[in-house]
Amino acid sequence: MDTNLSNYLKKEQDKLNELLSAYLSKLSMPPLLNHSTKYSIEAGGKRLRPILMKLTCEGLNGDSEKVYPAAMALEMIHTYSLIHDDLPAMDNDTYRRGMLTNHKKFDEATAILAGDGLLTNSFHVISNAACYSDTEKVFLISKLASASGLEGMVAGQLMDMQAEKESISVEQLEEIHQLKTGRLLTFSIVTGAYLAGADSMILQKMERFGNLIGLIFQIQDDILDVIGDSEIMGKASGSDEDNQKSTYPSLLGLNGAIEHKNRYVKQAKNLLEEMELNGTLLEKLVDYLGSRNQ
Amino acid sequence: MDTNLSNYLKKEQDKLNELLSAYLSKLSMPPLLNHSTKYSIEAGGKRLRPILMKLTCEGLNGDSEKVYPAAMALEMIHTYSLIHDDLPAMDNDTYRRGMLTNHKKFDEATAILAGDGLLTNSFHVISNAACYSDTEKVFLISKLASASGLEGMVAGQLMDMQAEKESISVEQLEEIHQLKTGRLLTFSIVTGAYLAGADSMILQKMERFGNLIGLIFQIQDDILDVIGDSEIMGKASGSDEDNQKSTYPSLLGLNGAIEHKNRYVKQAKNLLEEMELNGTLLEKLVDYLGSRNQ
Repeated sequence: MDTNLSNYLKKEQDKLNELLSAYLSKLSMPPLLNHSTKYSIEAGGKRLRPILMKLTCEGLNGDSEKVYPAAMALEMIHTYSLIHDDLPAMDNDTYRRGMLTNHKKFDEATAILAGDGLLTNSFHVISNAACYSDTEKVFLISKLASASGLEGMVAGQLMDMQAEKESISVEQLEEIHQLKTGRLLTFSIVTGAYLAGADSMILQKMERFGNLIGLIFQIQDDILDVIGDSEIMGKASGSDEDNQKSTYPSLLGLNGAIEHKNRYVKQAKNLLEEMELNGTLLEKLVDYLGSRNQ
Repeated sequence: MDTNLSNYLKKEQDKLNELLSAYLSKLSMPPLLNHSTKYSIEAGGKRLRPILMKLTCEGLNGDSEKVYPAAMALEMIHTYSLIHDDLPAMDNDTYRRGMLTNHKKFDEATAILAGDGLLTNSFHVISNAACYSDTEKVFLISKLASASGLEGMVAGQLMDMQAEKESISVEQLEEIHQLKTGRLLTFSIVTGAYLAGADSMILQKMERFGNLIGLIFQIQDDILDVIGDSEIMGKASGSDEDNQKSTYPSLLGLNGAIEHKNRYVKQAKNLLEEMELNGTLLEKLVDYLGSRNQ
């Protein structure tokens, strides 16, 4: 990875972790709920969504300090979705990022409630952020609820589980990923642009860019499940094939999936060039997302 | 029940059911998610929270049509909390309002996702309501997230489950109920007053009134579990004693619990008198809540 980008990621990851821990610490919660929410929030992860938001805002010369409350809310929603997805009734996972999943560390009831609480309080964070006008708060809340709710991420997760039992087309696979991961990734990018004061033409291009980022991210995830190193990733590889899950490599072959991804990377970089954002850290992040090994 | 009140309840229940079904129908969701969310939303129930909101707004001469989007959001959150509370890992209930619980009718994964989606979209409803200013939307979202999140209902549910394993005091019991059910009931009343344009003195009194309503509601729930008719209630009675759960009757005796409740009913009616709301349907609802048989 590019050194500037890797330093940037590290700095932003630390900043986000600090803000999220500080927010949870000042809430008055039962100790078990405190431990459980902090456990999953502090498990870290790439903080990709907040970083995409900040890089987009900076690329468009916005005041990027303003992204933090929206970025915290987004990361809380992302974390709740992982806690619930890992539950026995859903993906039934024991490890996440090399650590026990929330329901294994605590118990199922606690994990369900920790997820519910993180989801709910994400809207508390935005509605109480001092740096936003009421109009900005309403825009952010409406977009975030739409991206993560019944027509967004939640629908994608349900379709993903249903698809495990049947064979699907590449188009259906893209629709599922677009909902399950694409909508929140797109939210991060569109929000970064909105907070930089971008006009509607730029916001539309950023929406398309966000969709591409979501697809690139997901195809690489599927590719890593075939060829990845489980020690580096902190989770088992080969699980998709074991689960007979439809993936890009299973539908297109490994080389076909790589070509498919490279096409999207090219389209994403073309869009950045149209917005005069080539050469930025945002472009370097696109390269990284298409070639990451974890 | 007073005839005027019972006609009013019926009319408002129908109106709410219609609004909620129409909202869910126009969302673009996978069929299973559509069926599952509608199943629990249309299972009905008393719609007590929306009705409290509307009666409060009307009592203070507000434009009570404005309560509907907030009332819908509140009922969606209440419904999500019932779906998740019924899950095997939580209260493990098979029936609710005489019908199979969501996870029994569908499956656990679907029930978890239906709950997540209803919770998320409640914020979508408020943030997209045409009848509110941005300032009103932000007020409502902040209060709703606070009442139902990590410092509110979610905390109460966790404490309630923990309390099942140990003996607790009346004070601890009241704290749990205040969080688990009181916060949302108080939200409904304070929101009704806020949308009527009430001043801060009235809002403070309404907050105290809401707390009392929550306690009256819960004590009567506990009393009904001892002396109620399970056919009328649509759920088994005696389940608290079977579960060795701390309740008002178990801590104060049946007569002690009734006296305790009557004291709160008197305080609530005194507050209504201070606000010149005696003789209204709101006062009749207080009487009903303290004496209901289901």
